[in-house]
Amino acid sequence: MSQAAPPDPLARELFEQIASWPIYDPHSHIDAHRPASRNLDEVLGYHYYTELAHSAGMPAAEVDPGLPPQQRARNLARHLHRIDNTVQYSWLLEIARTFFGFQGDRIDADSIDDLYRLADHSAAGAGEAWDRSVWETTNLEAVFLTNEFDDPLEGWDTSKYVPCLRTDDLVLKLHEPRTIQRLQASTNVDVGDVKSLRLAIAALFEYFVERGARACAISLPPDFVPRRATPVASQNSVRRAITHMDLRPDEHEEVRTLVFWTLAELCAEWNLPFDLMIGPIRNVYPGGVAGGRDLFDRRVSLHDYAVLFTHFPGVSFPVSTLSPDAGAELVAFSWIFPNVVPNGHWWYSNVPAFIAADLKARLQAVPKTKLVGYYSDAYKLEFVLPKFNMYRRLLAEFLAEDCVRGRGWSADRALELARLVLLENPRRLFQRPGGGAG
Amino acid sequence: MSQAAPPDPLARELFEQIASWPIYDPHSHIDAHRPASRNLDEVLGYHYYTELAHSAGMPAAEVDPGLPPQQRARNLARHLHRIDNTVQYSWLLEIARTFFGFQGDRIDADSIDDLYRLADHSAAGAGEAWDRSVWETTNLEAVFLTNEFDDPLEGWDTSKYVPCLRTDDLVLKLHEPRTIQRLQASTNVDVGDVKSLRLAIAALFEYFVERGARACAISLPPDFVPRRATPVASQNSVRRAITHMDLRPDEHEEVRTLVFWTLAELCAEWNLPFDLMIGPIRNVYPGGVAGGRDLFDRRVSLHDYAVLFTHFPGVSFPVSTLSPDAGAELVAFSWIFPNVVPNGHWWYSNVPAFIAADLKARLQAVPKTKLVGYYSDAYKLEFVLPKFNMYRRLLAEFLAEDCVRGRGWSADRALELARLVLLENPRRLFQRPGGGAG
Amino acid sequence: MSQAAPPDPLARELFEQIASWPIYDPHSHIDAHRPASRNLDEVLGYHYYTELAHSAGMPAAEVDPGLPPQQRARNLARHLHRIDNTVQYSWLLEIARTFFGFQGDRIDADSIDDLYRLADHSAAGAGEAWDRSVWETTNLEAVFLTNEFDDPLEGWDTSKYVPCLRTDDLVLKLHEPRTIQRLQASTNVDVGDVKSLRLAIAALFEYFVERGARACAISLPPDFVPRRATPVASQNSVRRAITHMDLRPDEHEEVRTLVFWTLAELCAEWNLPFDLMIGPIRNVYPGGVAGGRDLFDRRVSLHDYAVLFTHFPGVSFPVSTLSPDAGAELVAFSWIFPNVVPNGHWWYSNVPAFIAADLKARLQAVPKTKLVGYYSDAYKLEFVLPKFNMYRRLLAEFLAEDCVRGRGWSADRALELARLVLLENPRRLFQRPGGGAG
Repeated sequence: MSQAAPPDPLARELFEQIASWPIYDPHSHIDAHRPASRNLDEVLGYHYYTELAHSAGMPAAEVDPGLPPQQRARNLARHLHRIDNTVQYSWLLEIARTFFGFQGDRIDADSIDDLYRLADHSAAGAGEAWDRSVWETTNLEAVFLTNEFDDPLEGWDTSKYVPCLRTDDLVLKLHEPRTIQRLQASTNVDVGDVKSLRLAIAALFEYFVERGARACAISLPPDFVPRRATPVASQNSVRRAITHMDLRPDEHEEVRTLVFWTLAELCAEWNLPFDLMIGPIRNVYPGGVAGGRDLFDRRVSLHDYAVLFTHFPGVSFPVSTLSPDAGAELVAFSWIFPNVVPNGHWWYSNVPAFIAADLKARLQAVPKTKLVGYYSDAYKLEFVLPKFNMYRRLLAEFLAEDCVRGRGWSADRALELARLVLLENPRRLFQRPGGGAG
Repeated sequence: MSQAAPPDPLARELFEQIASWPIYDPHSHIDAHRPASRNLDEVLGYHYYTELAHSAGMPAAEVDPGLPPQQRARNLARHLHRIDNTVQYSWLLEIARTFFGFQGDRIDADSIDDLYRLADHSAAGAGEAWDRSVWETTNLEAVFLTNEFDDPLEGWDTSKYVPCLRTDDLVLKLHEPRTIQRLQASTNVDVGDVKSLRLAIAALFEYFVERGARACAISLPPDFVPRRATPVASQNSVRRAITHMDLRPDEHEEVRTLVFWTLAELCAEWNLPFDLMIGPIRNVYPGGVAGGRDLFDRRVSLHDYAVLFTHFPGVSFPVSTLSPDAGAELVAFSWIFPNVVPNGHWWYSNVPAFIAADLKARLQAVPKTKLVGYYSDAYKLEFVLPKFNMYRRLLAEFLAEDCVRGRGWSADRALELARLVLLENPRRLFQRPGGGAG
Repeated sequence: MSQAAPPDPLARELFEQIASWPIYDPHSHIDAHRPASRNLDEVLGYHYYTELAHSAGMPAAEVDPGLPPQQRARNLARHLHRIDNTVQYSWLLEIARTFFGFQGDRIDADSIDDLYRLADHSAAGAGEAWDRSVWETTNLEAVFLTNEFDDPLEGWDTSKYVPCLRTDDLVLKLHEPRTIQRLQASTNVDVGDVKSLRLAIAALFEYFVERGARACAISLPPDFVPRRATPVASQNSVRRAITHMDLRPDEHEEVRTLVFWTLAELCAEWNLPFDLMIGPIRNVYPGGVAGGRDLFDRRVSLHDYAVLFTHFPGVSFPVSTLSPDAGAELVAFSWIFPNVVPNGHWWYSNVPAFIAADLKARLQAVPKTKLVGYYSDAYKLEFVLPKFNMYRRLLAEFLAEDCVRGRGWSADRALELARLVLLENPRRLFQRPGGGAG
């Protein structure tokens, strides 16, 4: 029995059923060329471990990218006992036991070398076999990637590793020289004004959709407010951004507005869901470890997005909010807007205490056909299973308590709801544009 | 045994006791001339069903007001399976079983015609008998209405259907020609300036109180901030509003401020509780179905209301907040201000997950004599019972877990607390001005 | 068995263990010269009782400071039945039973005189013995005080009653004549400009640290935003403040900024933790009873403090937030910033419903070595035990449910975590600067 199984017998029974299903993971940061880890350092390098260990006192230098991988792993391991209460540590232990055959109870300075050896798949040719093994053990059906807009999307099976167009740089960093260079290089469009900018971005959509992309995604800071674009009036600001001139704050805002709105128009045109990840502020803590510098400002409201949701009724917006206390608002907006889909439990909200509360409210007040239960957000394939198991357990506990005992449902009816939320909804919502689910 | 009864034996025992009491419902939108439904379409027309079905994919045209009622019901029924996880659906099933004798497990395309037939009370004379039957089955003691300020309040027993003066239009729409026309027509006051405006509003209070009104009520958007009125300085803005001239934003604000403050003064004068429903923004989603277009901005604080609560110590303010995450703040303000009363669980906050959390904090930290447990907010009488039962169950579960098992209280002591919150407090807080509770 | 013990057998077992440990209380308002109460009026005078009774209808005059103590106690007692549902009332009952030998079930008009007699320790010499008795029954190891900056800190054992430098007046009231007078009188520094102001504050730090202070503390309103000080540019504003001239809002802000930043610099220099109590707005309800006039605005974010946390990596910031809905954000900031420590559960957030939710999220997502479980915030020694017992119970319930049953931990491992959070972390985080824990 999985260590993730809940103690309540009824919840456990439901969990075991749910855990036997394939996983459909609609958002991750997996590298399709190297999906599973090659060594333990790639697992421990997940920002959760480095940032929590750093938060607990580990100097950033101990996980410096310049160190040999095993040394980094050893250094980190010496700090793991300080975070062995966290849910993130529990994922690590589940990975060690499920995938690496680890038998111990703790991952620490004593056990790290054994575990490192067990987790080593760096030998020539071993990696690909390991990727397949993790995929199979996880019982993965599909996992969505987060591809930079100039990713050629070549060299993998896109029905398994599904491309997704990440657009942060286009909206937030258009004024940086590198962005326009990359855009021109990947589209062969000479970008000089609003019109050619739109042509270039449209070319990205065409390229991505032709290669199997099934979503466009962006993460947006709390101060971003979608507004209807004004292409003619914004012409000057956009030209200045493209030519890397200094922009005033209002010009920056015009550029962000225009590009974001253009993306929404193209999502409408190409029938692509537009994943909105709302909340992060980058580099709030510059002294943090890599990947552990971003936070948020909790003063954010989906009301800022109403004009967007209203203007694009044909675009599905799977929405994730970062601040845990914003979860209840997402329930209300999903309950009113047909095109707002509550999407998983993200990053700082991806903690059992917060997930359980959000999951309960969503399942009590949002149409069941609109719920996308979970995504892994993982960087390495090994994390998909323990993260989904955490969610599956909380879902099973809700179903046992609230639905079966609380409302008198049969276990089968409860499992139907779980299947919808975990499999059928994401398959349908992220199906191939113009076609079936795969 | 009611389907709403909780599974825990102790909680169930408490629930059954509580469920045998009469219901005192201090806020609803019942039409006293037609309190219960005449057909199933009037039940299914509750905005919860149309908006949730619409959110789940039903075109608004399928519940167009121009369609024959049974067709609307059939259309909606085809979408109900998509929302059968929601608490709102559970109210519907409880209504069907309790009031209409429905035996099925699901209300869907197959069962809708049978249910429509069972729920039909449209024959001449059948309606009034049905109103009485629902009243009695519900064991209603009193239900508060929400009357437009020009409602003549005639033709019903106001000790059962208690009038309440709704003032949204006066505060928020005074500049619209229709408002002044209605105000003049209902008061015979020629409204032309601040003074005559006050006279007219005072006439409304007199009229309402004489006809049994026991509360004044208003719903306010998140950007409204009560301020002490400045009648002399606001004279010009009010004149411009009354004569329907264009107002600048600051003039609008002056008018809203003046009228709202006048209402509070009159509540003090007439000893009427002033129900504040804080949060909704109207027509956030213009494409929604009727009644399903309003949402909120979660960035709201009761701190904005401190000046009001301080200035009117003699006015009782039953407060409902719309954003679920604002509930904890209401606990703090109710704990400090003698005249702030936490009032029920409203609209987007009226979901078991949110109610349970708010109820717990209120019962742990606010004087028990100040808690108004619940109101139905219903448009049709049939909804009072299932909505109250939802609350009663959550209350019973709290009492069983937190009070009896957790603090060693006797069941009787727990029931006394329930009785206070559900019956004695609202009876006392909303008693007839200058007199007894009814 | 303590009345605070939880009903679940496993949780009770853990609670009984935890309840046998000493208490380390890192924040209170105890007066070291008179730590325990001399009579019941000093217990009932805790603002929780006066403000809740006032909120429930008691006129403020009934607890007027001019009344004889026993009369005040009698007056209050007549209102206690209206708040006997609150957790605050449960502390009172636990005090009465544990410390005063009270046998009853209710503290009310009937029992108040008996209880008053039992609680009387006002006879000459009785007080000191009573202080020792309460200390021993509580099994106190250390309790932190909150000392005004001009407190001479003389006349008690500072290893038991640990001084803490309270700095609210310096930051928020520097422009008031009294503040500068007190500062000059206590430091003998002639304060006239930025430089001499800093010298004076530095002298306070030296004085406090030499006399055993182990923290600097401040409570800050929601509109305060820490910014890097600009001593040269702020020279003029500071001079105007020191000479009590009228300040413009931006000058006030400059002064607050400069003094606050100076405090942080001195905390770095002296290796003192800087307790931040974020949120209260003073005198929101001027009509309230003493100590019951402050509230908050929930629109506050720790993001405003990121620049502070980043600039002072060497200063430990134990953070308490006042608005209960801000608790989730503190989890995220503690998880990223090594120097941000989530500190207890404060005031309006110190309610079981809120504590349980916050405690769960912290224990699931913040390194265990950073958690400071609880502090009493008490004014009289008798409150330390019941308030800690409330927390201990919630902690035991979390450990039983989430760790032992939920994750398969042994009871010993769960108790290790409890010990860390309640004893080892606060001992280490608040250890004597430059030395050991005591």
